[in-house]
Amino acid sequence: MRIPYNELLSVLLKILVNLGFEEHRARLCAQLFTEASRDGVYSHGLNRFPQFVRMIKSGIVVVNAEPQLVAAFGRPRAMGRGIGCVALANTNPWMSGGTYGWQAAEAGVIGICWTNTLPNLPPWGATDPRLGNNPLIIAVPRAAGHVVLDMAMSQFSYGALATYRRRGEPLPVEGGFDSAGNLTRDPAAIEASKRPLPIGYWKGSGLSLLLDMVAALLSGGCATHQIPADSEREIEISQVFLALDHAAVAQNGAPNDMADQIIAHLQGHSSASEGKVRYPGQRVLRARKRNLAEGILVDPEIWREVQSLL
Amino acid sequence: MRIPYNELLSVLLKILVNLGFEEHRARLCAQLFTEASRDGVYSHGLNRFPQFVRMIKSGIVVVNAEPQLVAAFGRPRAMGRGIGCVALANTNPWMSGGTYGWQAAEAGVIGICWTNTLPNLPPWGATDPRLGNNPLIIAVPRAAGHVVLDMAMSQFSYGALATYRRRGEPLPVEGGFDSAGNLTRDPAAIEASKRPLPIGYWKGSGLSLLLDMVAALLSGGCATHQIPADSEREIEISQVFLALDHAAVAQNGAPNDMADQIIAHLQGHSSASEGKVRYPGQRVLRARKRNLAEGILVDPEIWREVQSLL
Repeated sequence: MRIPYNELLSVLLKILVNLGFEEHRARLCAQLFTEASRDGVYSHGLNRFPQFVRMIKSGIVVVNAEPQLVAAFGRPRAMGRGIGCVALANTNPWMSGGTYGWQAAEAGVIGICWTNTLPNLPPWGATDPRLGNNPLIIAVPRAAGHVVLDMAMSQFSYGALATYRRRGEPLPVEGGFDSAGNLTRDPAAIEASKRPLPIGYWKGSGLSLLLDMVAALLSGGCATHQIPADSEREIEISQVFLALDHAAVAQNGAPNDMADQIIAHLQGHSSASEGKVRYPGQRVLRARKRNLAEGILVDPEIWREVQSLL
Repeated sequence: MRIPYNELLSVLLKILVNLGFEEHRARLCAQLFTEASRDGVYSHGLNRFPQFVRMIKSGIVVVNAEPQLVAAFGRPRAMGRGIGCVALANTNPWMSGGTYGWQAAEAGVIGICWTNTLPNLPPWGATDPRLGNNPLIIAVPRAAGHVVLDMAMSQFSYGALATYRRRGEPLPVEGGFDSAGNLTRDPAAIEASKRPLPIGYWKGSGLSLLLDMVAALLSGGCATHQIPADSEREIEISQVFLALDHAAVAQNGAPNDMADQIIAHLQGHSSASEGKVRYPGQRVLRARKRNLAEGILVDPEIWREVQSLL
């Protein structure tokens, strides 16, 4: 089922205003969910909206909370010239992290951001979830299509595992351990053991740890082990947003088309598997184009549930 | 064979001075190699020194080159308060990248740095090396032992593959493709196919691409595809060094022992594999302690070769 962008946005907007959001904040928030669905990140778009409403109704998410400045890094305007860093403490999940990468790229700057999460990933060498999957976003602006990497530190999210299971398909690569401690491609076995695999085994485990540590230290907020392991109470998250303006570098030489050169080189070569190399963000642009042209793909059941909140 | 730290350092120092390095630069450079070996990163310590000398003698590495400021980001003193970023263009490999993480942590700040490299890693979906393995370093200072992640974007370096092959051991996890395109744990098969695996398959492939792109854009220098695929001519590298001072955040609350808390939580739980969870940098400290106490482990053949350069 497909719903036009503006219809989806206005329904979410009305619900948020009814819940007490100020108009301009309701709009920013509704956009966050609508744009995630528009970009094909359905799990963090409309599909997550009912839970968000429950968190507001239960008082977990405070609708008109204002961030309080605890410490400042670099220049005050993170998106201005040079370099800027904002770290947020005690916030709720950012929904689709890619959104903030696209925002930075739209503003013409390089964006690097990450968040910690509730504990959902066993570190390499342990069986219980002491780490978060801590998504990392790196975005580079490019006229022909921004390059936006949005990757969690687990090889597959629980959402992805469920999708493969429902389709009755094995994972394309090993995605975790079964309850006997063997690496497996069986999504249901990983859902049961709660032992998804960090990307690159010990490497992603280390990267997840450091992202958590830096986020908690820069924000003065909580680390993963302090966040309740309950997605409806996940409101003590720490996030880091870095923006780097490379315009000053570009001005010194010829017009800087480095990002284009790199993508052309990545995709231009012939090889046994020619045509298969995608750059991060490319699939998002394709989903966005289709969802804007034909309406945003929604789950009819969730769409009915959301409309009932009006 | 073990050589005391000071002996190793002074031999390398003399060789570099003889090659025309100014005294203080020779010392910094000799330290770089000696400290890599001291910390157990032998491949980028003494073992790499003969190649470095060849690159100087062939004129590829210019011994007293001074970096030229092309653009400035943030505050001028990268290691001072707040946030600082330095990007280097047209430089040679940094040897053990972890060194710069340890330096930042010793200075009490969070360090994030990465480098691009010559093409040595096929992106996900291709068979030829269009990406570098682009090591990423993240370091957090901690009185009880800095936490320093130093990870390349390939699951195993060529050095690691050679080590497993010589021992006649399979890799602990799949490390690349054989020439028939199947994932394999056979190190020799991956050396033959030149198809090591990015960490996390498509994820590490994307992260490598973005690290290359950001390094080239911020430095105004070269991207991986422009760097000669010959390690003796690898001198057009781009590097990024970010330093973040979190002291201002710590001052607002109680003494900030967050890094200790996170490590305690990581290692403190009981589990089926109790005692096996290491934090990044822990093994380095152990190697350092032993190498300082008993002398630095050197390959006798390489040590003879280096002494012959005196």
